[in-house]
Amino acid sequence: MTDLHAADLSSSSPLLALDIGGTSIRAAQVVGGQIVQRLETRTPKPSTPGSVILAAAELARPLAAECRALGVACAGAVAGGRVTATAAHTFPGWTDIPLSAELGERLNLPSSALNDARAAAWGEYAAGAGRGSREFMFITVSTGVGAGLILDGRLHLAGNGLDAELGFVSVPALWQSGTDVPPLGRLGPLEFETSGTALNARAALQGQQNARALADAAEAGDAQADADYTRSAALIAWKVADLAAMLGITRAALGGSVGLRDGYLERVRTALAHFPERYQPQIVHAELGADAGLIGAALWAARLGSATRQRS
Amino acid sequence: MTDLHAADLSSSSPLLALDIGGTSIRAAQVVGGQIVQRLETRTPKPSTPGSVILAAAELARPLAAECRALGVACAGAVAGGRVTATAAHTFPGWTDIPLSAELGERLNLPSSALNDARAAAWGEYAAGAGRGSREFMFITVSTGVGAGLILDGRLHLAGNGLDAELGFVSVPALWQSGTDVPPLGRLGPLEFETSGTALNARAALQGQQNARALADAAEAGDAQADADYTRSAALIAWKVADLAAMLGITRAALGGSVGLRDGYLERVRTALAHFPERYQPQIVHAELGADAGLIGAALWAARLGSATRQRS
Repeated sequence: MTDLHAADLSSSSPLLALDIGGTSIRAAQVVGGQIVQRLETRTPKPSTPGSVILAAAELARPLAAECRALGVACAGAVAGGRVTATAAHTFPGWTDIPLSAELGERLNLPSSALNDARAAAWGEYAAGAGRGSREFMFITVSTGVGAGLILDGRLHLAGNGLDAELGFVSVPALWQSGTDVPPLGRLGPLEFETSGTALNARAALQGQQNARALADAAEAGDAQADADYTRSAALIAWKVADLAAMLGITRAALGGSVGLRDGYLERVRTALAHFPERYQPQIVHAELGADAGLIGAALWAARLGSATRQRS
Repeated sequence: MTDLHAADLSSSSPLLALDIGGTSIRAAQVVGGQIVQRLETRTPKPSTPGSVILAAAELARPLAAECRALGVACAGAVAGGRVTATAAHTFPGWTDIPLSAELGERLNLPSSALNDARAAAWGEYAAGAGRGSREFMFITVSTGVGAGLILDGRLHLAGNGLDAELGFVSVPALWQSGTDVPPLGRLGPLEFETSGTALNARAALQGQQNARALADAAEAGDAQADADYTRSAALIAWKVADLAAMLGITRAALGGSVGLRDGYLERVRTALAHFPERYQPQIVHAELGADAGLIGAALWAARLGSATRQRS
């Protein structure tokens, strides 16, 4: 399975990709793992399934001619092309929505859908920071925390759509009220203790404008800012070490507005060095930036129609 | 891939299995997922590769006739049939030892080797508590803590042999001195905070004879014993919830002398109920007991020789 993306990357036939987020919808034509044309629109509000599907199909239609398949990346739990929102306030009414089929029908293309972090993981594995690895993990630390896993060269997709919900593993909750789990004390989702949103809240407590200002201050030597910034990175490092022990991950790539900062990467590496050496994967920056989801969704769709390939 | 074990189970051709542990070596003939003949000997001391391989081959030889393949289960990190001990004091000199090839050659059979917890996981998935699941986890809580993962119906085997080292994920260390990870505080391996060995040490502090006595006291209502016993179960529950979020695990089976106690299973379930409902897999007892490793190793070896099958 591990060399399939080589064929996908070398094909000159274009693929159509859509990345549907809470703020914007982006469409692209992808050839050989690179974006050759792109369009973008604001996500309609309220973001009901009907309005989002209509807007996405209209955006992508001018790019669809000549394309051989459609790959969709979107927020939420995705299994078998169907989507259930994990952030119900952002995507009202999204319960078991056949997003892949709806868009494929409107655009008259064979189609597949992946969670956006899983799509980005596949993109980084096939055409970015994960190339050449066998057990690879992509982590985005941004508004939220997301991830995707490549195991034995395959994208891990669970039957229930919980493929890599890194933002929802539990850690000791200091910043937010968490679930009380006697006798372990207060635990809460990793996302609430590490994300840009969490850092924004910490910044406000320190009189900083936002997470970016807090990170700048930390990197400039402000001890109070550094404590919060480093704690976020150390929690990420802890979970990376755990997943190295559990899954044999040998490389992890950090993406997202927080994860792509050099100072953050350094802090993750420093924290990881406290764990046993064999549970320390190589930590690198993601390479495809905000395009990872589009490229990954497109390359995933390239696999459609081949019976010998992993199911989407 | 997911229905391969059905063919393995229905075959009437016997398979040879070896389970090499620190205390004993066991050999068995397995037919249709059941043990039809067995032999056992003490593991030679010191347990060098040469002495262990000789003893295992001699033990198994009387069972080898008519068998079509050999499956070996053993402690340590196993990749590509080669073994590196994780407990170097129990298995001195075991670094990158070609155990599968050495035993296969001596017994004149095609052969494969798996870590013992991974073999047990495969056994439980194919013929025990994991049947019918897609994302399944086997956990043994005994002298140590081990695990195995079935993802999309496949046994997860990492390139570096760290397939499911659950005993070495990190948790807040209260009972043992752990690795100091600023700013997260003291962390230590899950095994040191949950295993039978850890409970033995806690029992001694309370004037109890051993882990079993501590568990008996806890189940009889002794508050002090219950606190330690419940903490072990709650830490296991926490990691189960995390892996449900990360991997979509829908069923987890508990084995091992501690894990098989009804009171322990109940405490894991109670602790798990504090996590979000969608990260609560079904928690059941393992069904194959101490034979899971032998049966799993045999059924894994049944896959040898078929080009379309997952590599061993």
